[in-house]
Amino acid sequence: MSQPYSLTQPCRLSAVPRWDHETDVIVVGFGAAGASAAIEAAESGAAVTLFELASGHGGTSALSGGEIYLGGSGGTPAQRQAGFHDDTEDLYRYLMLAGGPDADEAKVRLYADHSLAHHDWLVAQGVPYKNTFLPQRMLEPETDDCLIWSGSEEAWPFAEQAKPCPRGHTPQWAGWGGGRLLMDVLAARVNALGVAVHLDSRVLALIADEANAVHGVVVRIDGREQFVRARGGVILCAGGFVMNREMVKRHAPHLLRSDDPIGGPGDTGAGIQMGISVGAAAIHMDQAFVSLPFYAPESLIKGVLVNERGQRFINEDCYHGRIGHHILQQMGDRIYLLADSATFQEPAELVRIGIAAAGDSWDEVESDLGLPEGTLSATVEVYNRHARKGEDPLFHKGAKWLTPLDQPPFVALDCRVGYAFYPHFTLGGLDTLPTGQVLTAKREPIRGLYAAGRTACGLPRWGGGYSSGLSLADATFFGRQAGRHAAGGQTDR
Amino acid sequence: MSQPYSLTQPCRLSAVPRWDHETDVIVVGFGAAGASAAIEAAESGAAVTLFELASGHGGTSALSGGEIYLGGSGGTPAQRQAGFHDDTEDLYRYLMLAGGPDADEAKVRLYADHSLAHHDWLVAQGVPYKNTFLPQRMLEPETDDCLIWSGSEEAWPFAEQAKPCPRGHTPQWAGWGGGRLLMDVLAARVNALGVAVHLDSRVLALIADEANAVHGVVVRIDGREQFVRARGGVILCAGGFVMNREMVKRHAPHLLRSDDPIGGPGDTGAGIQMGISVGAAAIHMDQAFVSLPFYAPESLIKGVLVNERGQRFINEDCYHGRIGHHILQQMGDRIYLLADSATFQEPAELVRIGIAAAGDSWDEVESDLGLPEGTLSATVEVYNRHARKGEDPLFHKGAKWLTPLDQPPFVALDCRVGYAFYPHFTLGGLDTLPTGQVLTAKREPIRGLYAAGRTACGLPRWGGGYSSGLSLADATFFGRQAGRHAAGGQTDR
Repeated sequence: MSQPYSLTQPCRLSAVPRWDHETDVIVVGFGAAGASAAIEAAESGAAVTLFELASGHGGTSALSGGEIYLGGSGGTPAQRQAGFHDDTEDLYRYLMLAGGPDADEAKVRLYADHSLAHHDWLVAQGVPYKNTFLPQRMLEPETDDCLIWSGSEEAWPFAEQAKPCPRGHTPQWAGWGGGRLLMDVLAARVNALGVAVHLDSRVLALIADEANAVHGVVVRIDGREQFVRARGGVILCAGGFVMNREMVKRHAPHLLRSDDPIGGPGDTGAGIQMGISVGAAAIHMDQAFVSLPFYAPESLIKGVLVNERGQRFINEDCYHGRIGHHILQQMGDRIYLLADSATFQEPAELVRIGIAAAGDSWDEVESDLGLPEGTLSATVEVYNRHARKGEDPLFHKGAKWLTPLDQPPFVALDCRVGYAFYPHFTLGGLDTLPTGQVLTAKREPIRGLYAAGRTACGLPRWGGGYSSGLSLADATFFGRQAGRHAAGGQTDR
Repeated sequence: MSQPYSLTQPCRLSAVPRWDHETDVIVVGFGAAGASAAIEAAESGAAVTLFELASGHGGTSALSGGEIYLGGSGGTPAQRQAGFHDDTEDLYRYLMLAGGPDADEAKVRLYADHSLAHHDWLVAQGVPYKNTFLPQRMLEPETDDCLIWSGSEEAWPFAEQAKPCPRGHTPQWAGWGGGRLLMDVLAARVNALGVAVHLDSRVLALIADEANAVHGVVVRIDGREQFVRARGGVILCAGGFVMNREMVKRHAPHLLRSDDPIGGPGDTGAGIQMGISVGAAAIHMDQAFVSLPFYAPESLIKGVLVNERGQRFINEDCYHGRIGHHILQQMGDRIYLLADSATFQEPAELVRIGIAAAGDSWDEVESDLGLPEGTLSATVEVYNRHARKGEDPLFHKGAKWLTPLDQPPFVALDCRVGYAFYPHFTLGGLDTLPTGQVLTAKREPIRGLYAAGRTACGLPRWGGGYSSGLSLADATFFGRQAGRHAAGGQTDR
């Protein structure tokens, strides 16, 4: 082998030539999961060393809106101030639905019970929330406001099973990109707690004994390989794998239909690969957040989405990521958003949605799109007939979004997969316990190994249920669990 | 640990107390992949030991129809006798489409080039083919005939890109279940070649050195643990994981919508788990063969499939497994097959398809099903209008299956997911080279470890492209490659 250390093969304990450094807990990655893990481990009294590949903190979390999915226990200050009472069981039921057919009940239970306390923890770290509510549907606040509807809470089928409540909490930051603020706050805490942070540091391999128990990492700093021992555990918080397009091809090749992965350069699957190297199971590796962020303007939610046969396939008022998930299940790339003169507003430029056809009747639009007579026009006819009564018997779109599309001129907006903006990132990762302990294919914990954030498969694990703020909620909350458990683990090794 | 040996953790070489037995090649599993691997390794001059969990040979292969997907190089005797010329490039293109968005080009190339030679090899082993052709669409011949259309060869989009040719070759065996004959023939060859076959033998763990190179297995025979060394390699042919419903839940939870897994009791993922234990990557673990085997009677192919909104979603003349794949992508469980008095014939009893609604007009059927006016009826109107012209502009169903459904009475057959018969098995498994060498997450071969059959991810790796005979083609052909490579490997260890 030309490369002596590899993400895909651990360095064995017996082959470690020396310990350059010893600590209680090693954290790999300085995004939201890594920062939260480091804070909690340090506050538990552990000596913590954090390695980050980049030259600064933040990871992919800093590129995000900083929105965190919070609620339950009656409600956060922002929720209560807006007049919402958020029952823990409603949060629980929502998260169980959002987790899809293999929702992690143990994680959902823990998170639902402690989400409000987690909110308070974030505030205690210094994350500022203005606690104001914006009722309009949007991707993120463009102001420094706090609370938004960030998922499918009001939409079928979620609204039927969990009382709707807005739960997306954005830090007090003017404009998009509040993740930068979130990460600056968490990083300041990490530094204040005395965590030994090493930037520009590439973790090359885990160090594991013959039984695959993990004892540390091999890390390259300033061109030199160092062997670092962790008495309590190694916590992998190295992001997902969406930037590793070869890996995406082997696990989620449908995502290659879009050229818009969203992630930092570190989202190469390195953490997942290291877990696999010591026998960990990676699960739900096909699942992803895939969006068509067509709103705001929210009046477009009153439009109708059809596939290339002119068929509807979703209630258009659900979360844009749930819509993206279903778009990729349609046969063919052509997707249209139908609007009339009353509902049409210019889509945001970044979404790359143009006009495919327009006409004074839906028959004309149908014909312009090259669709057979009686397809799209019949779809709209059925939709309009029921919309006039405030009903959507096919997809149960909410009454507030139901209006007949009968004001000419009519337009079909071009949302073609492969042209329009379909941002996506991966949800699959290492199987873990709520403690963050990484599991084998039989769900036995691998001693000394933890994962959090998108290196793990957490609360968000099904594209059909993703909601903005779920990934950061999972990363920060379960990063903390891993930090605490690894810090405690130092005593029983 | 109460269990000293585990599928999810290798026994280290340094911990092996003794070698009870040494051989060149160990094969785990006595289905089609294992038998083919053992034959080829033995014929290469290697000493071969085969361990099988069950009390006899056969595995899941013996429960199948024994059909193998063969062709190219101008055609097999059966193909040529039926008047078909099967060009290698047509087979290649078909298999590339069938492999889906991550088709394994190297495996497809090798198989397309050598499929005819593989046919001759099967015949040389003693597999009898009557070389007769049955042109009707069916699941398997009920007679001892040979060749059938076993995939989507004549259907859109396959027919557009690869000249159609029937390629499903069934052994000369009266009735369903020719897999038993196939396996009896292969097993006789295994025994004749002097392979040391151990039945009732449970492999407990791989034996691997510190670098995860594989040197043998720990196996329990007659209640005693034995340590068996393989100088050339261990070939995992232990089937898929469809019977391990917990594992299905973590990788392909949509399959749990059906209670009809098809597999032997050994399809518990043991081979995949052992691969993972030494750092192998398991890929496309979400993909599966899922079928609604609604034909024969083939006249039902002239019917129209709709989802619970009365929408068509597929050309009904493609392979039943491609149809099942798309059914599971429809929102909701209700699926109907529409027929009129001219096309209706009683579905086979095993498919559990009843009658949901009937009427003298499609409006009446629509209403009986509780569908909004103008949904199902519009679907049939568009279908009929174009079918009269021999066209299907929406899904490109072949002209021979296009007939207007306009002869009352009309019927909607109930194909509900969760009630009708949706047999399924898994297609995901260990990533391998065409040699059968098992790969890490970075596609580096793991020394001494091979996999074939459904323990590996092979030619069939996408539910939308499965065709009957692909799994046995892959298992037998790539089992042979693994056997040959592992036998050769004995000299460079």
